Amino acid sequence: MTIHSNLNIVPFVSVDHMLKLVLAVGTERFLTELAEVIEEDFRRWEQFDKTPRVASHSEQGVIELMPTSDGALYGFKYVNGHPKNTREGLQTVTAFGVLSDVDSGYPVLLSEMTILTALRTAAMSAVAGKYLARPGSRTMAIIGNGAQSEFQALAFKAIMGISTLRLYDIDPTASARCAKNLEGQGFTITICRSSQEAVEGADIITTVTADKQNATILSDNMVGPGVHINGVGGDCPGKTELHRDILMRSEIFVEYPPQTRIEGEIQQLPADHPVQELWAVMTGRLPGRSSERAITLFDSVGFAIEDFSALRYVRSKLAETGLFLDLDLIADPDEPRDLFGMLLRCEQKLKNT
Amino acid sequence: MTIHSNLNIVPFVSVDHMLKLVLAVGTERFLTELAEVIEEDFRRWEQFDKTPRVASHSEQGVIELMPTSDGALYGFKYVNGHPKNTREGLQTVTAFGVLSDVDSGYPVLLSEMTILTALRTAAMSAVAGKYLARPGSRTMAIIGNGAQSEFQALAFKAIMGISTLRLYDIDPTASARCAKNLEGQGFTITICRSSQEAVEGADIITTVTADKQNATILSDNMVGPGVHINGVGGDCPGKTELHRDILMRSEIFVEYPPQTRIEGEIQQLPADHPVQELWAVMTGRLPGRSSERAITLFDSVGFAIEDFSALRYVRSKLAETGLFLDLDLIADPDEPRDLFGMLLRCEQKLKNT
Repeated sequence: MTIHSNLNIVPFVSVDHMLKLVLAVGTERFLTELAEVIEEDFRRWEQFDKTPRVASHSEQGVIELMPTSDGALYGFKYVNGHPKNTREGLQTVTAFGVLSDVDSGYPVLLSEMTILTALRTAAMSAVAGKYLARPGSRTMAIIGNGAQSEFQALAFKAIMGISTLRLYDIDPTASARCAKNLEGQGFTITICRSSQEAVEGADIITTVTADKQNATILSDNMVGPGVHINGVGGDCPGKTELHRDILMRSEIFVEYPPQTRIEGEIQQLPADHPVQELWAVMTGRLPGRSSERAITLFDSVGFAIEDFSALRYVRSKLAETGLFLDLDLIADPDEPRDLFGMLLRCEQKLKNT
Repeated sequence: MTIHSNLNIVPFVSVDHMLKLVLAVGTERFLTELAEVIEEDFRRWEQFDKTPRVASHSEQGVIELMPTSDGALYGFKYVNGHPKNTREGLQTVTAFGVLSDVDSGYPVLLSEMTILTALRTAAMSAVAGKYLARPGSRTMAIIGNGAQSEFQALAFKAIMGISTLRLYDIDPTASARCAKNLEGQGFTITICRSSQEAVEGADIITTVTADKQNATILSDNMVGPGVHINGVGGDCPGKTELHRDILMRSEIFVEYPPQTRIEGEIQQLPADHPVQELWAVMTGRLPGRSSERAITLFDSVGFAIEDFSALRYVRSKLAETGLFLDLDLIADPDEPRDLFGMLLRCEQKLKNT
């Protein structure tokens, strides 16, 4: 199957196609391969145009555009964040994205990214965990058992070999649903009655709560030596999950400092507090975890390059699966300068039929 | 017909649907109504979030995102500019855009915008002409007879009563095609052998050439008193059409100064050279043309609010025409926090069939 023999046609991956694509590949394999593409792109970090996201804030939430380019492909994601949406039966976060050919400026892929963002966020977390957590980590606490939790669990299983989960959510039905959704996937799962209980014996602590506020999901006494914290939920100004004292004891790793300083847990710290960039750890320029007893923190906020990697990965799967539609998105006159002629010929055609 | 009873469905206007929509409404009526919406939005200029476009430059061209919001709706356009594309049988400029509900962050329209941008640029020019050109203007010179020329001609006919066209292009076949495309539309058309000849007796001079360079399409001696110049082609850094001396003699009107200072004809002038904002002329805060003999210049570069207006107008036409497709763009789980459950239910459904 050829993708866009006609340049006016842009392949479109709908929500339905994305679900089928993930199932066709297999969720764990999808996460593993996606993690590989993210790692590949992080290793060539310096090739990318990087810019903080372009945000439009309102009282109810935020709409953002996240562009980046590696010089050959250009990608951007549209994503909203509206915490009050769940009360109205809507998603807090929805997203879609586009990949384009830099040489011509023509789009080559339009894709849903609500599901894809959940997958790429989990894959990114697991890649960071692979570099930062103690080798042999098997038990993960997940605090916050909403839409992102199962994806996190599967990514850490596929990429790091996590086999035991300790779940906690202020809403016990959320933990129950997470446990039920993960049935038969090979985990040993304990539902806990407090964060304190959840972190007992955990090698990795994933925090992924949703409230837009400065919360304290983890307090200082709950985090023992050697733990890796995967901090996913603190991802915009005024929204953090960790007590400042934990940050002061941790070795902190980030995606893109100019963005994380504004959006991440480290918004609680002075602007010159030392952090390590993850890409530099991956390429060996920075040391990463300093010792077995160090506390490492991946202060995840989600960066445009991860979306770029995700779109690139999805595009690579289209020819073999055929899971896309052809979208008539780009005007393609026979003679490039004759746009108005398209209108005349369309009129003629309508008259003739 | 109801538009998106299901919030996961986003109406999509393809290139084919856009052509049919323009024809169903009628090109001149479309331009007139679109001009009214642009004027409406310019008159409430202060309600909008305004930001210069977000550009990603490469050797071959540029890809830009142009977002804006009025607090109720959010819109953005993706647009590329690749002058070398025409040599490869591609469009120099292609575009698509999205309109979203600020309250939920959910997209409510995805539309092709290559054709729509041509229409909105022409409608914008004619709105500016209505406020700036001498009353009773009937003759327009069009220098540069490429993809934008017919749209300019029809917009100035529909909105200002222009009936006589004087065409010039360095490529005579472009002028011939423009004249042929406009046959039967009620114009008196003269094809000219030089810019000098084209501007003779013109009340309005439209410059809309495409080369990415600092060119001199009009020199100072060619512009007489009372003329309105509609400068469309000078629209990015390093791309201008008018001799600096013309600018010095003109009363200059712009869309959004921070953008026009970088992209427009006035990039040739000091950053403090006086200009009037068009929205302020429309609302009577600034005087506009000072006298019958003044030379007025609309230094058009194209601003995000015009695209917002165009998307808003197209959206208003969907229910009556039905010229759109339903796109499955937004993940819509039965329970908002149960994104992973969608995957499980999809798997179950595939097993059952």
